[in-house]
Amino acid sequence: MINNSELKYIQSFAHKKHWAEESAFIVEGPKMVQELLRSDWTINKIYATADWISGQGVLPVPVVEIDEIMLKRMSQMQSPHQVIAIAEKQSFLKALPYTQTLTVLLDGIQDPGNLGTIIRTADWFGIQQILVSEDTAGFYNPKVIQSTMGSCFRVRVESTNLEAVLASNPLKVYGAVLNGQSMYETKIQSSGFLIIGNESKGIGSSLSKYITDPIKIPKFGNAESLNAAVAAGIILSHWKA
Amino acid sequence: MINNSELKYIQSFAHKKHWAEESAFIVEGPKMVQELLRSDWTINKIYATADWISGQGVLPVPVVEIDEIMLKRMSQMQSPHQVIAIAEKQSFLKALPYTQTLTVLLDGIQDPGNLGTIIRTADWFGIQQILVSEDTAGFYNPKVIQSTMGSCFRVRVESTNLEAVLASNPLKVYGAVLNGQSMYETKIQSSGFLIIGNESKGIGSSLSKYITDPIKIPKFGNAESLNAAVAAGIILSHWKA
Repeated sequence: MINNSELKYIQSFAHKKHWAEESAFIVEGPKMVQELLRSDWTINKIYATADWISGQGVLPVPVVEIDEIMLKRMSQMQSPHQVIAIAEKQSFLKALPYTQTLTVLLDGIQDPGNLGTIIRTADWFGIQQILVSEDTAGFYNPKVIQSTMGSCFRVRVESTNLEAVLASNPLKVYGAVLNGQSMYETKIQSSGFLIIGNESKGIGSSLSKYITDPIKIPKFGNAESLNAAVAAGIILSHWKA
Repeated sequence: MINNSELKYIQSFAHKKHWAEESAFIVEGPKMVQELLRSDWTINKIYATADWISGQGVLPVPVVEIDEIMLKRMSQMQSPHQVIAIAEKQSFLKALPYTQTLTVLLDGIQDPGNLGTIIRTADWFGIQQILVSEDTAGFYNPKVIQSTMGSCFRVRVESTNLEAVLASNPLKVYGAVLNGQSMYETKIQSSGFLIIGNESKGIGSSLSKYITDPIKIPKFGNAESLNAAVAAGIILSHWKA
């Protein structure tokens, strides 16, 4: 049984104050929870319908059975599905060596859906770590977690001072800017940094001065700009092509 | 002054029954309304704050001044900005010749934000027309219109029976499918069809049988799939590269 304070605790993840400050975070739906179970992240507790539980083997975490009505009350989704997990946040104290991998830097991405989609896209193209500026949307925002479709458990995402990272690691820095060279004529190397800028303002001046290889995605039509996640996907695809 | 029935009429665009069946649609914010004014779409009326009005010249449409409180009441946005326009829907009776352009077909895209972002991305790469299946999200859904960032006024988007179009136009048909050939090894021609499938189910069997060139975006990491708009952007970029 769920008591009222437990229900309130879970419902509170809808509020920024809670998801930002709590040491745990919320994960919803069978697909996401399956990805979580496969990962090395610590799960505190799972709340699930009898349906979901009956499809699982023995689980190494406490599972509480709930009915559909309770699921609806707990969930932040419009159409909740079967299961909600509460997992422990992780922090990555040590970055992978910047000389051995392409690290994506996100400079002030505001929309949680964009951030989640960028993490998912980066995972598709084999990016292992993403550093986000302190003014980027919060990683543990449930909307970010859900829109990664599970990639949040695989790609290392850390909020940090991006300028300090760039200043102390003199490597190739690719960044999409208005006056860059056509991406199609630029070979992106297998290590270094790729900066993706804010949805409307692009890459801020404190970071843009570190760009060694300014690139742009050539425009053939009339849209003023591309969505940040779409732009990230296009550049990462070009990197791998 | 706005009377109550006019306010109710505008507020009703939040509901599907209204935006789907009404002959007009709603456009919000200075950027979107600027794009609308530049286009050949017919504007019925503009509601705007004194601020916005003072920045315009003589406008060829009725403009009603409203205050911030009324703007907030009319708007569907969390933070409404300055102006709301009501414009007339258009229908495109005649398609551009399929032999002279690459036409994008959308098979059951469900998420309004995805649909809008695909239209915006297509506009960036010079796509002039998009045909959407009848079960795709509604074009005039305000969430679609807003997320096109103005591209909805430039790209022709029409809901139609996609199977009938493919059956009667034996051209190259590119479609992203699981067992396709690597996109990087496929040259996409300048005319024909490119099908983008539903977010979770992909391209349905009624259309997939028309695909002449099955392609896939190679995966280098572990994400299970790509967002539909990101995938569309990657394929269109490859088309132009």
